[in-house]
Amino acid sequence: MSSQHRPLADPKQGDPRPGDPRPDEYRILPEGDLRDYLARLPAVAVLLGGLPESWSISEVGDGNLNLVFIVKGSEGGIAVKQALPYVRLVGESWPLPLSRSHYEYLALTHQARLAPGLVPLVLHHNETLALVVMELIEPHIIMRKGLIAGTLYPSFVGDITTFLARTLFFSSDLALPAAKKKEGIAAFAGNHALCKITEDLIFTDPYRVAEQNRWTQPWLDATAAVFREDLDLHVAISRLKLKFLNAPEALIHGDLHTGSIMVTEGATVVIDPEFAFYGPMGFDIGAVIANLLMSYLASAGHERSPGGRRLFEVWVLETIENVWTEFASEFLELWRTEGHGDAYPLTLFAGAAGATRLEVERQTYMARLFGDTVGFSAAKIIRRILGLAHNADFELIEDPKQRSICEARSLRLARAMMVETSSFPTIGAVTKAARAVRDWQPDFG
Amino acid sequence: MSSQHRPLADPKQGDPRPGDPRPDEYRILPEGDLRDYLARLPAVAVLLGGLPESWSISEVGDGNLNLVFIVKGSEGGIAVKQALPYVRLVGESWPLPLSRSHYEYLALTHQARLAPGLVPLVLHHNETLALVVMELIEPHIIMRKGLIAGTLYPSFVGDITTFLARTLFFSSDLALPAAKKKEGIAAFAGNHALCKITEDLIFTDPYRVAEQNRWTQPWLDATAAVFREDLDLHVAISRLKLKFLNAPEALIHGDLHTGSIMVTEGATVVIDPEFAFYGPMGFDIGAVIANLLMSYLASAGHERSPGGRRLFEVWVLETIENVWTEFASEFLELWRTEGHGDAYPLTLFAGAAGATRLEVERQTYMARLFGDTVGFSAAKIIRRILGLAHNADFELIEDPKQRSICEARSLRLARAMMVETSSFPTIGAVTKAARAVRDWQPDFG
Repeated sequence: MSSQHRPLADPKQGDPRPGDPRPDEYRILPEGDLRDYLARLPAVAVLLGGLPESWSISEVGDGNLNLVFIVKGSEGGIAVKQALPYVRLVGESWPLPLSRSHYEYLALTHQARLAPGLVPLVLHHNETLALVVMELIEPHIIMRKGLIAGTLYPSFVGDITTFLARTLFFSSDLALPAAKKKEGIAAFAGNHALCKITEDLIFTDPYRVAEQNRWTQPWLDATAAVFREDLDLHVAISRLKLKFLNAPEALIHGDLHTGSIMVTEGATVVIDPEFAFYGPMGFDIGAVIANLLMSYLASAGHERSPGGRRLFEVWVLETIENVWTEFASEFLELWRTEGHGDAYPLTLFAGAAGATRLEVERQTYMARLFGDTVGFSAAKIIRRILGLAHNADFELIEDPKQRSICEARSLRLARAMMVETSSFPTIGAVTKAARAVRDWQPDFG
Repeated sequence: MSSQHRPLADPKQGDPRPGDPRPDEYRILPEGDLRDYLARLPAVAVLLGGLPESWSISEVGDGNLNLVFIVKGSEGGIAVKQALPYVRLVGESWPLPLSRSHYEYLALTHQARLAPGLVPLVLHHNETLALVVMELIEPHIIMRKGLIAGTLYPSFVGDITTFLARTLFFSSDLALPAAKKKEGIAAFAGNHALCKITEDLIFTDPYRVAEQNRWTQPWLDATAAVFREDLDLHVAISRLKLKFLNAPEALIHGDLHTGSIMVTEGATVVIDPEFAFYGPMGFDIGAVIANLLMSYLASAGHERSPGGRRLFEVWVLETIENVWTEFASEFLELWRTEGHGDAYPLTLFAGAAGATRLEVERQTYMARLFGDTVGFSAAKIIRRILGLAHNADFELIEDPKQRSICEARSLRLARAMMVETSSFPTIGAVTKAARAVRDWQPDFG
């Protein structure tokens, strides 16, 4: 939808004027100050329409980190996101740098260039206030909510695979000269506090005693204890963590769950890339697949009658398969047509034999990337069930025992994916295992 | 030897004074200006001793890139290295950023901290002039020259493995928190012009038609042509290049051949880290092993009587084995005792079972690193025989046919190491293959 939009304002315009209080310092903007602030941004004021006094402003941030305001005027609406100097979910005891707003802005503009229409358009950015003004994404809803309700999203696969293929490919060594890539790595290296959240909450805490861990008690007590002692799993998650620390393959979104995706049946918009940095591609692809797998395995918990969500579940499994296959197909096609980066120079694969051999190597590359995807996907599932941040797919299953059954199935699948990754050589092997575990009944003793 | 030295001057002291011509601009310092410049650095003047007029200054740069002066006074000597804005070997047509002096300075101070006594002590650094003043390393000679002469260096293994183990380990995720490591990556990201030289001259040009390539003609014409068509080799070198682009495992020296190592029989000093950046550890270890392998296979070309260098050759092979085994042993011991980085957190490997499992995983990690080392080692050999920059081990073999025989043996070994890396699971397999190829007679048709 937003591909028809054009920039309405120079994103850098409208920095605070001399009359503003302490223009060089960060402050949390109360509603009234925000109204005044926006009124001074000509393009934003025109977009909203009418007098500033008439604009409606509501704080809607349901995320864990930031303030988010929806502002509507007579002509249109905007979203305003302001970073807080701490984790909103926890409070001031967990400080978090405001610079994440800078990295989110950088990532949004990168993604908008490569995947226009698939991310919100930035209308204004203020580094000092850690504030980004974006087009309002409507009538979209958070994809996770739609999936819980059992809604199918026919255009999702095409959109998300385009987003993934283009943002990852064009920031990789397959597309870029090394100097450019190194500039990008350096530009995002400062976002380490956000990376650290991932390193701790995804790659470490669920596998050890950690105060913030939680799970559905008492049913998952035993499984959580087993996971804390499972050394095969600990080796596997440690290798994935090392890859997360050590593989700047592309500029990744870094938090690409279904709560970071807004949808209608015909459109998809990816939001909230504040965790962006140069990391392993499989982390983003795995995040999408993990969240679809959890949607599939949570579905039984949202049934109103047995089999009542069968159509939805079939669609989710098909979607999982299509996310990988269409991503791989688009990524490979970009490599074939736009592979002008410093990796795999074409001059080493000249002629028909060279082209054939390079194509074989591309398939090998994709198989390696698929292995990463399976592993990271498993990591994303486990952290949502045994770690700090859970997701609504499971949380909204009212009966805790039923919830724990869905979660236990997910953990069983995820453990196999992480420890026996090579037994999942294709996405079909993943969906087959998911289908098999769907009807497994855990024995809670 | 230099471990007994103490800093003689604040490295940042002595920037040009108001009287200097254009103090804010780079200029190549003629000998007279250099004398005046050094005279104004009190600690350097004291170290040299006597009147500045009495100092001897000689330009000794035999490298490819920079000016190097040896300055001696009545009391002592120093080395002065000034970067030129172009590749010295080629001339002004090949510009190269002066910033490499900045990265060399950063790397030298990093290495001096981690491996004191094994790198020259920096006495003074001037960013603007791209100039570093260092202690004079004497009576050491360039190791390559000593190896060509057939000299044994009994302390080399202990020194180089300490240098490798400590500089690599302590800049890795095994030792560092991720934030610190990302800072380091960013600090060296700007050194991409030097990385590009490696990417082109080592990982690309020897495998394609490139104007700068050269080899011993006519004997190696056919092999060079075969290497340009060998798609197994092209896949292998491309995977290594991707790793070079994509694996910031540690701060590596980046050019660790035996021309970057100065030795006496009892001491070793590593110089010239201007190619330093965060890259794959195997690249440094592989460089050392590659250059020893070439020394071994060039040895026959320096024989004055058949078998006259047997003792030397036995020592070189033992040295190759010991470089890996002692490096691995030191690295593992550091990991066990100082592994406080974010990778492989100890809390995931608690108790006796955890400790045992982590130890198994450490061995797996080392096996992977050894595979990288074998591959990179092969790449370093091939570039010295088919690419732009050759080395004296071969070049000083006067009879070109004899030289080409030694080179052909090296290429044969290197190709196997790069394409069939897994058939070299141990360093013993490498030296065994080297020994076997030592007496192979190439058929030049």
